[in-house]
Amino acid sequence: MGSASATDHQRELDRFYADVAALDLQPLWTQTRNLMPGEPTPATRPWLWKWHAVRRLCERAGRLVSIERGGERRVLSLSNPGLGGLPFATSTLWGAFQYLGPGESAPAHRHSPGAIRFVMEGEGAWTTVDGDACDMAPGDLVLTPSWCWHDHKNGSDRPMIWFDGLDMPTVIALDAVFFEPHPDAAQAVRGRNVSERAVGGRATIPAAARHEAPHSLLVYRWRDTDASLAALLTESREPMATLRYVNPLTGEAALPTLGCEMTRLLEGRRTRPVRKVGSSVYVVFRGRGVSVIDGVELEWATGDSFVAPSWAAVEHQAAEPADLFTIDDRPLLERLALFREARLDEPQKIRERFQPR
Amino acid sequence: MGSASATDHQRELDRFYADVAALDLQPLWTQTRNLMPGEPTPATRPWLWKWHAVRRLCERAGRLVSIERGGERRVLSLSNPGLGGLPFATSTLWGAFQYLGPGESAPAHRHSPGAIRFVMEGEGAWTTVDGDACDMAPGDLVLTPSWCWHDHKNGSDRPMIWFDGLDMPTVIALDAVFFEPHPDAAQAVRGRNVSERAVGGRATIPAAARHEAPHSLLVYRWRDTDASLAALLTESREPMATLRYVNPLTGEAALPTLGCEMTRLLEGRRTRPVRKVGSSVYVVFRGRGVSVIDGVELEWATGDSFVAPSWAAVEHQAAEPADLFTIDDRPLLERLALFREARLDEPQKIRERFQPR
Amino acid sequence: MGSASATDHQRELDRFYADVAALDLQPLWTQTRNLMPGEPTPATRPWLWKWHAVRRLCERAGRLVSIERGGERRVLSLSNPGLGGLPFATSTLWGAFQYLGPGESAPAHRHSPGAIRFVMEGEGAWTTVDGDACDMAPGDLVLTPSWCWHDHKNGSDRPMIWFDGLDMPTVIALDAVFFEPHPDAAQAVRGRNVSERAVGGRATIPAAARHEAPHSLLVYRWRDTDASLAALLTESREPMATLRYVNPLTGEAALPTLGCEMTRLLEGRRTRPVRKVGSSVYVVFRGRGVSVIDGVELEWATGDSFVAPSWAAVEHQAAEPADLFTIDDRPLLERLALFREARLDEPQKIRERFQPR
Amino acid sequence: MGSASATDHQRELDRFYADVAALDLQPLWTQTRNLMPGEPTPATRPWLWKWHAVRRLCERAGRLVSIERGGERRVLSLSNPGLGGLPFATSTLWGAFQYLGPGESAPAHRHSPGAIRFVMEGEGAWTTVDGDACDMAPGDLVLTPSWCWHDHKNGSDRPMIWFDGLDMPTVIALDAVFFEPHPDAAQAVRGRNVSERAVGGRATIPAAARHEAPHSLLVYRWRDTDASLAALLTESREPMATLRYVNPLTGEAALPTLGCEMTRLLEGRRTRPVRKVGSSVYVVFRGRGVSVIDGVELEWATGDSFVAPSWAAVEHQAAEPADLFTIDDRPLLERLALFREARLDEPQKIRERFQPR
Repeated sequence: MGSASATDHQRELDRFYADVAALDLQPLWTQTRNLMPGEPTPATRPWLWKWHAVRRLCERAGRLVSIERGGERRVLSLSNPGLGGLPFATSTLWGAFQYLGPGESAPAHRHSPGAIRFVMEGEGAWTTVDGDACDMAPGDLVLTPSWCWHDHKNGSDRPMIWFDGLDMPTVIALDAVFFEPHPDAAQAVRGRNVSERAVGGRATIPAAARHEAPHSLLVYRWRDTDASLAALLTESREPMATLRYVNPLTGEAALPTLGCEMTRLLEGRRTRPVRKVGSSVYVVFRGRGVSVIDGVELEWATGDSFVAPSWAAVEHQAAEPADLFTIDDRPLLERLALFREARLDEPQKIRERFQPR
Repeated sequence: MGSASATDHQRELDRFYADVAALDLQPLWTQTRNLMPGEPTPATRPWLWKWHAVRRLCERAGRLVSIERGGERRVLSLSNPGLGGLPFATSTLWGAFQYLGPGESAPAHRHSPGAIRFVMEGEGAWTTVDGDACDMAPGDLVLTPSWCWHDHKNGSDRPMIWFDGLDMPTVIALDAVFFEPHPDAAQAVRGRNVSERAVGGRATIPAAARHEAPHSLLVYRWRDTDASLAALLTESREPMATLRYVNPLTGEAALPTLGCEMTRLLEGRRTRPVRKVGSSVYVVFRGRGVSVIDGVELEWATGDSFVAPSWAAVEHQAAEPADLFTIDDRPLLERLALFREARLDEPQKIRERFQPR
Repeated sequence: MGSASATDHQRELDRFYADVAALDLQPLWTQTRNLMPGEPTPATRPWLWKWHAVRRLCERAGRLVSIERGGERRVLSLSNPGLGGLPFATSTLWGAFQYLGPGESAPAHRHSPGAIRFVMEGEGAWTTVDGDACDMAPGDLVLTPSWCWHDHKNGSDRPMIWFDGLDMPTVIALDAVFFEPHPDAAQAVRGRNVSERAVGGRATIPAAARHEAPHSLLVYRWRDTDASLAALLTESREPMATLRYVNPLTGEAALPTLGCEMTRLLEGRRTRPVRKVGSSVYVVFRGRGVSVIDGVELEWATGDSFVAPSWAAVEHQAAEPADLFTIDDRPLLERLALFREARLDEPQKIRERFQPR
Repeated sequence: MGSASATDHQRELDRFYADVAALDLQPLWTQTRNLMPGEPTPATRPWLWKWHAVRRLCERAGRLVSIERGGERRVLSLSNPGLGGLPFATSTLWGAFQYLGPGESAPAHRHSPGAIRFVMEGEGAWTTVDGDACDMAPGDLVLTPSWCWHDHKNGSDRPMIWFDGLDMPTVIALDAVFFEPHPDAAQAVRGRNVSERAVGGRATIPAAARHEAPHSLLVYRWRDTDASLAALLTESREPMATLRYVNPLTGEAALPTLGCEMTRLLEGRRTRPVRKVGSSVYVVFRGRGVSVIDGVELEWATGDSFVAPSWAAVEHQAAEPADLFTIDDRPLLERLALFREARLDEPQKIRERFQPR
């Protein structure tokens, strides 16, 4: 092609692209590789939040900010610096810490995003879920499934702090968020720990239980999680054991959109690096150690929280026996047949040590 | 029709029926109502076996009969008098008591019928299921699912007696029985109570668990069953609470063909009569009371066993707090969409008091 | 043991067995191998019924026997000589031929056993199922699922004959038979071939369809079956192709208890012998050939029916292109995790040629 | 509070918010209502693209742009003006038109986003999916499920244009995109329309079919869709009938993340307005009419495409009999228990008439 005709062609092409744009269309071929890279290219960055800093800010919030309708909750959310200012821990997960002072309560509402609470500190508070007041103590997991009414009450004279995990970023991306404030500040309580007594057995369920319900048990006690992890570690010969919290009526993940797990790490041995589709938020319930996430080494201790992006290589090493609570996207991805994982043969090279602020 | 032609017609009809029979055919119209009555007409009769009598015979068997290949087990089976001499508790359920003396063992084998063991007396024995030695104590339920290798060993210096429940009559009716003796008298033991440690949590399961397996947990402890029943009774306001033993990986019945339940009855109040398709075998784990089954009143106490035929009206009344272990056909019937049940408005009239032999 | 004490022992044992029997108990150890043989030992025998004989008896029945309430249907059932006089084709399957004369009708009723009709001869009749009048023509399969009201009407001036398949022996064994005559001789018809128009698409279903229904499509047309078999044979390189009739809303067997299949055999090649748990009734829709069933060679032609017991080795060879319609227990056995099958390496030795009566 | 202390409090609050931000945290209470509005507030706008404009640009692209590795496809994507320049039809759906000239081919690749093709114009082309060459003609739907190799070939002397639908925006939001070019420009073809012959029956499936496969049938023919719609309309008395394309092995949506439906509208009657969670792309296969989407009236004719945001009220009225092909998020949302829909009692007020560019 002569240079004249090359110029002609370019001019025609320019006109073409302008016409395409003017009609609200776009060529795929100029952006195929951006849209479909070989592997996930998450904006989420490996990141860590120190407990002492989070905790101090929670207390300051407790003094400075009251809990009111509209604001609804005194919550500080993890805001991943890779996400351009969004209040999300990862591209798909909300992670946050909620502070409820002595005697305080947070008003009743419901929303289509599903939520979990994992208790860090304090006891004597409860979350009421559709009328069932679920007592909360450290290490307990409490569910507030999609569209269940819920409010929180601290009946003790000490503050409570817990971790809030939600599928909110995904539900927002799906344009599926619904929210409704309860007409009253607090729901009527029809019983305490009802679901726990009713369906909380060890591989037994009430003969009358209805299996179609999308959720059943609302609270999982730390003493049970602890005992099951101990038993599982005795059994396996791995440096770690991981439990999945499930709906006892179905054996499926406790929430359809949010996986909850607890991992116990033995001291010293390093876990084999694994990649999996979907991001994770880790909350250190107890212990001390390091994790390497896509080459970034993060040092953690009790109360810290950190995140792994989708498809990041992740490995852990505990300096003392440690328990990591995790939320992730796995149940959602499995339901959509989009989950995959890969075990790596070699430990990662550390290319950066994370400096917490 | 004149009488001559009526006779002709009858003669022709007789010839016709003879020809039909000669060709291995049968008319339906002469037997429609027998084949398809309005409601089930089970041959199984309401019946009861007294514990002291069964127990004494078990001990005599222990002295007189050794356990050998071929015979395989020292087991006395409930033989319902309605079933024409068959060794079955009901038309579809096998119920029996097994006696294992101090130090004795019963050889390893496997079979397509699924079995459960519910421990009546003694401890220090174990059932090894596919290499997993499951310890047995009173009130524990141990599964030996279809086609799993299993053998029993009494490591104590006291005899053990347990109840054996099997789906055998149904598997025989389906021409689906397979049996294989293990090459060795006892299997190699690869661990003790492995499934219990590995999958026995309270609504948590190992992240690595494989859901496709038709069974998972092999043993259900009495202390857990007891605690769950107590919690459930606190919750409900019924005179009884019933737990179903489930596969924690799926929330479905522990075995696909055999339902296992435990019912706790409060003292004094009578349960509302219920009919359900499928028969049941009840084993009184503790307590005292009466049941009315299709008008027959059966008085029971600890250790007794009794049966209800399909579609029989059943109601219970405990004279002291009681726990009834039950096996039934419900999971099988539900999988085939043949289950139904009906609650009756009125207590039954008692037409007979059962006299145990 | 001295002979005196041996005699003593025997005497004591005799007393023991007598006491056991008196208390409605039975020892297992004397009958273990009978109850649990290594492989199924069905009473059902390989057997064949010739069409011309069946057809002639159907016609005689048409002249001699009217269809009335109580008898309900003019049906001749296959009575397997191995089953001691029961009117069952196999231990678990009912197979029969139904004859409906010109203008005749068979009264409306419903029952918990599920049924299928496979049309042999005639057209212009219909089966009304829960108000949906399903037209019937040769090769069509019509379902009357468990507890659906159904009646038959022959609107033509020619007789109709079809094959009736039911799960009745199993439902009887499970003590789960319910039967109810309709208050009227015939149900009100709310439409013709409604299910066919509504859910009979090719991998499309109405967006409004309710998936919880245990059944959906009620009629499967021969022209579709024929076309699908032809396409499947083109695809595979096997001497046979087998289609399973399914519920289009779930992809599962058309009835939960009864498998329906159509097998097309190419001329000449012999199929590889296969054993499977559960029995089968074969109806030759067209063609000629032989089958070998546990060493018995049965020669068949259009209209003949024959049966295979559970776990029998089965192989077929068509002398001309042939279509075999089959009912079996497979969906039921699969739901109970009792199904298994085995392919044999060698063709069977023929030990007997079946002589039809 | 005095104004001095109010100022102090504000100052302290400012410091607090600054410290929160510095530690990569965010307060929830200042943005609760933005994050969780009462109902979905999609950025997606109701929009329409005229066929004649799209078609003309496709042809210009055919002259100006060749198909090459890297660009991979000659595709013009619908770019919803509400989405800030993204090449997406809605926030969750990719919709586009692909142009393949006579004799051209588009190279083989695979990706985790699932795709469908709905043919607008031309025939004699095929899409090869994992070795199965699926012929394409107007009205046919061809699947290229997640991670299946696929390439396109136009074997005719006329151009082909089809609609491409993908779940890509969602898979990007989930950080789950994987892409791989095939080592060769085109895959080896192992057969033509194999899945169609093998599993494309009318409620029959091959007895040997494997149900675990996430997909089965790859192509759905227009003649079948057309016939099923006609039958369904005869049955119902609604002004419209909608078919869902399903996996015949499971009865579930053809792809786990993407619903495909075809709606036939009778002339004249207006459909009742409906809202549902999840967005939709409509492609007018034939006919003429208007739709009202959240008060915006869009006038459409054969070949046009238009979109409805999540929770938009949608109603249609055909000016002549019309067939609308649709993709939506429904299977995905149902799997996550996030789907809901509402029927409105009143037709919408039209607040704007859409002016296509």
